[in-house]
Amino acid sequence: MKQLRVKPGDKVRLSEIDPAATPGFKGDKAEGKALAAKLNDELEALQELLYAEHKHKVLVVLQGMDTSGKDGAIRSVFDGVNPQGVRVASFKKPTPIELEHDYLWRIHQQTPAAGEIVIFNRSHYEDVLIVRVHELVPREVWSRRYEHIAAFERTLAEEGATILKFFLHIDREEQKQRLEQRLADPAKHWKFNPLDLKERARWNEYQAAYEEAISKTSTDAAPWYIVPANKKWYRDLAILETLVAALRDLQMKPPAATFDPSTIKID
Amino acid sequence: MKQLRVKPGDKVRLSEIDPAATPGFKGDKAEGKALAAKLNDELEALQELLYAEHKHKVLVVLQGMDTSGKDGAIRSVFDGVNPQGVRVASFKKPTPIELEHDYLWRIHQQTPAAGEIVIFNRSHYEDVLIVRVHELVPREVWSRRYEHIAAFERTLAEEGATILKFFLHIDREEQKQRLEQRLADPAKHWKFNPLDLKERARWNEYQAAYEEAISKTSTDAAPWYIVPANKKWYRDLAILETLVAALRDLQMKPPAATFDPSTIKID
Repeated sequence: MKQLRVKPGDKVRLSEIDPAATPGFKGDKAEGKALAAKLNDELEALQELLYAEHKHKVLVVLQGMDTSGKDGAIRSVFDGVNPQGVRVASFKKPTPIELEHDYLWRIHQQTPAAGEIVIFNRSHYEDVLIVRVHELVPREVWSRRYEHIAAFERTLAEEGATILKFFLHIDREEQKQRLEQRLADPAKHWKFNPLDLKERARWNEYQAAYEEAISKTSTDAAPWYIVPANKKWYRDLAILETLVAALRDLQMKPPAATFDPSTIKID
Repeated sequence: MKQLRVKPGDKVRLSEIDPAATPGFKGDKAEGKALAAKLNDELEALQELLYAEHKHKVLVVLQGMDTSGKDGAIRSVFDGVNPQGVRVASFKKPTPIELEHDYLWRIHQQTPAAGEIVIFNRSHYEDVLIVRVHELVPREVWSRRYEHIAAFERTLAEEGATILKFFLHIDREEQKQRLEQRLADPAKHWKFNPLDLKERARWNEYQAAYEEAISKTSTDAAPWYIVPANKKWYRDLAILETLVAALRDLQMKPPAATFDPSTIKID
């Protein structure tokens, strides 16, 4: 599934990527779920090692249109993983205090510590997405931010963070169906906000904003992965496979004892 | 398992409580695990509701001697629960900045927000436990803290928090066996700190400090539960049952729509 990765300098065109495809995987849903379950077990073991080593930091950024499955992916991918050492940071509308600072201020506070995996449910990318689409700041302000973001992420990476950024790619028709499902189920009404339809009406502007953001900030230090997400099982599988592969690459080992076990006597 | 609850004003004597007992449960290990699995499913559903309602706050405090199973309980009890909405705060040795503030300052920052479950792995109780045993502050300072703590927890409770405090009760022999197991397994050496043996040597002082802390701070607003924890399966079951019962008592419902679903049309 390495083909999901956006190479530095690539110009992304979302309309050319099929959101219902399953690139790099030939099996069906049942086979996909079986593989995901195995990868989830491996993720559990690797996360325990990450926590034990207390050396690497892991940042997973999830972005996507409403209903693209950010919440669902968090639930499935990290199912069973030890909540100690895994943390979710959700970035909603900034508070008045947050707005008095630069837009990376609140983000930096939530970045992972040694041994920790942090999942960003939305992120600093909103500052070149919703902020751009709604012109919350002038173009000259948001257009400078791609470089800030790349520099910020490079700092994090060079100081020990592994950064993986996932764009969950669905199409407008899939969003319609998912919104209708929420509307049809009273138990899901709390997830439905009529204002979201105003965002939906600006679908094309958001897609353009995503294309520019992804194209300008996919770096070796902090790559973007475009995950076809109409099929939920493939979405979860692709994130799991990418994350597990990145953790394997860290070649972690249980830390050796800092003492001589043979000298220890327990009364 | 309501008998685990320490009634306000009760004088706790830990030596009179069997850490290998399974009060309130007559089944064996396999039956205990089966019941725990069911309660875990119910916890998942209740946590989702808590998150949806965005009204109540839940604080779970875990305390106990080294190896009493705080980490293990977090892993088992919250297995499969959505990491979004559940957070673990671990309190280790205070940093220099934290020490420049009162001891509740760092604690308050980590208390749950609406819709959130927060698990304290150790807590402000260390300020009347390790601080007392090692005389890190004079007796006149720590002895005032029981009242501060009760008042602080009362504030949290009256502002919407459900507080459950668990003391994981093991005996000295059980700790010996668990430490020896860690020592025998190189993959677990990172969990072993020879300095922990110095704490172990002060077992009786810690038990006395726990007895006073629990006796003085078990209130209706924030009760203590003494959980016999030599048997890991019973420890998990007792925490699950107590937590699930408390969440049931909140009588949560999915929030009603703030809009009229019949008027919504999705293009």
